[in-house]
Amino acid sequence: MGARFAETVLPSMKIIPVIMSGGSGTRLWPLSTDARPKQFHKLGAERTMIEETAQRFSGVHGNVTFLDPIIIAGASHGDLVHSLLARCGVTPSAVVLEPMGRNTAATAALAAMVANEIDPEAYVLLAPADHLVAMPDKFIEAVQAASAVVSDRIVTFGITPSGPETGYGYILQGEALQPGVHHLVAFKEKPDLPEAMRYLREGKYSWNSGVFFFSPKLLLEEFSIASADIRDGAREALKHAKRQGNEILLDAASFGKVRSEAVDRAVMEKTTRAAVAPCDIGWADVGSWAELWRLSQKDSRGNVAEGSVTMLDCMNTMVRSDDGIQVSVIGAMDLIVIASGNSVLVMPRGRAQDVKKVIPGKG
Amino acid sequence: MGARFAETVLPSMKIIPVIMSGGSGTRLWPLSTDARPKQFHKLGAERTMIEETAQRFSGVHGNVTFLDPIIIAGASHGDLVHSLLARCGVTPSAVVLEPMGRNTAATAALAAMVANEIDPEAYVLLAPADHLVAMPDKFIEAVQAASAVVSDRIVTFGITPSGPETGYGYILQGEALQPGVHHLVAFKEKPDLPEAMRYLREGKYSWNSGVFFFSPKLLLEEFSIASADIRDGAREALKHAKRQGNEILLDAASFGKVRSEAVDRAVMEKTTRAAVAPCDIGWADVGSWAELWRLSQKDSRGNVAEGSVTMLDCMNTMVRSDDGIQVSVIGAMDLIVIASGNSVLVMPRGRAQDVKKVIPGKG
Repeated sequence: MGARFAETVLPSMKIIPVIMSGGSGTRLWPLSTDARPKQFHKLGAERTMIEETAQRFSGVHGNVTFLDPIIIAGASHGDLVHSLLARCGVTPSAVVLEPMGRNTAATAALAAMVANEIDPEAYVLLAPADHLVAMPDKFIEAVQAASAVVSDRIVTFGITPSGPETGYGYILQGEALQPGVHHLVAFKEKPDLPEAMRYLREGKYSWNSGVFFFSPKLLLEEFSIASADIRDGAREALKHAKRQGNEILLDAASFGKVRSEAVDRAVMEKTTRAAVAPCDIGWADVGSWAELWRLSQKDSRGNVAEGSVTMLDCMNTMVRSDDGIQVSVIGAMDLIVIASGNSVLVMPRGRAQDVKKVIPGKG
Repeated sequence: MGARFAETVLPSMKIIPVIMSGGSGTRLWPLSTDARPKQFHKLGAERTMIEETAQRFSGVHGNVTFLDPIIIAGASHGDLVHSLLARCGVTPSAVVLEPMGRNTAATAALAAMVANEIDPEAYVLLAPADHLVAMPDKFIEAVQAASAVVSDRIVTFGITPSGPETGYGYILQGEALQPGVHHLVAFKEKPDLPEAMRYLREGKYSWNSGVFFFSPKLLLEEFSIASADIRDGAREALKHAKRQGNEILLDAASFGKVRSEAVDRAVMEKTTRAAVAPCDIGWADVGSWAELWRLSQKDSRGNVAEGSVTMLDCMNTMVRSDDGIQVSVIGAMDLIVIASGNSVLVMPRGRAQDVKKVIPGKG
């Protein structure tokens, strides 16, 4: 923050939120399943994560006006998307359905193209549907700050680290471009613990949130330079899509051929026009049951109970029942018990990364 | 076994097994419930416990011939009794339904009266429906031995202790009456550990199995001396019972007034005509989930899995799923996980005695 800036007048702009809802979230099995992944469940909030995300990016906030969102989801989740958004009073301008997952680069290219159809003057805020944000107002402030540079930068949002997490990628920031927006120097893969400690000491690193803010035209230009094949493939799938009302079902034959890569790698690591807006917004991607326990409000013994749950003499234990199964736990310590649908998972908190190994049909 | 006997010719006799199926077995919740208690489930065997019990006491064995059994059960379990026994090819001579539980003294008096109706020359073997017997042939041998004295003794079966259990009542035996049958000196309440240790050292104590063998006439005489009111109340409930086919639904108004007491206390502790037949039959009353784990066949890590169960890195852990719920357990040690109906129970093995505290509506 060494640089000083003249008083900036932030430009008025329209933003189309594009909500990426294609994740599978297997680490939260048995709640999260192929049929109903994480983003279609309530986690730490009154509403499902996709509803929370849609609500987070709506309305008018100073210089920025959010338009109706675009949702990009798996083809089998179209009905879920429509019904959940209707429930929370959001009308998407488009629901783009991917016949198969092709990672976030293809999704970002589609976001730019569909947004451009809807309003060629609007910017895109591309955000995953399955993140928690405890302080959405501060997120909006970061978007406002980033708006000062978004006409010729692709902005990522960097989360101020709360500790030396080894489960996230990091972003190294350079000089400030404007108040609250910096040059993006480098993306760093998930570090080991000593490296993460060093990142925190140096103070110029933030967590890669996977949220991007850009002008569709600029992003597609950068795709042309860095990953033109992905842009072309996405365009082909969109061209041959089946459209009905606000729903766009991508052409499976074309989309299946698109190279599967993360937008970070396909574009962001290669472009010279990246910026990062560091922010401290109470963010979490809730990547495991242990993390959900950590983030949850606990009773005086460190327990978290949700649903039809009875706990007796438990400590630091999370028990969750989502579909009416009566779960009773006696004398447990550091345990996680999840009942959802027709499945039950029991494990010590320390084993939360091993959930994938016991998912039926995926072990 | 110090005494010596002349070669005894065992008397030929008919025995009506009377199977007491009124227990509630709450310690095995959530498998065992009011709607379907323990004896109507499979525990450590191919068939339900009531089926196993009915099969155990059937056929001709040397001098003893088992007739069709009488079942005494709770009024709400009539249909279960009929369907389970039909399934295993047993036709009860009577199914006596108790409108409410009145403990085993009333049940024993009813057993004597109903057996007397069916065949006044037959003896009664009164046995709980919810015990495991690993060596039924040795049980039959004990019945044969006891047949030598049963014309003028009420015989209990005493289980040779495998260890200083504090969860069972004990029986102190005296001099032998015949090979394998002794005077019954005293009933002992559940002892503390030092006392149980002493019992085992002295070698004259066995566990009270709750199985009795008697002539109906003799038992009812002893009721007249020790607890005439219970006999009279049971008789009244039987007199006013509703009978249909082989089913006898006791009169609720009369039966509700019967004094609720265990037959051990109401008659056996008071009669001078008690005997005990010690036997080593692989007996267990499966009084808790921890005990079921102990009795179950385990894999090399001490785990027991039954039903739709996945275990990863577990030790000395029992996971049981009875109704198709998929239960996955990671990294558990000394844990018990039971899924049955719409309920799940999780606890360390050491807490198995506390199950009652978490049963919904009974805590």
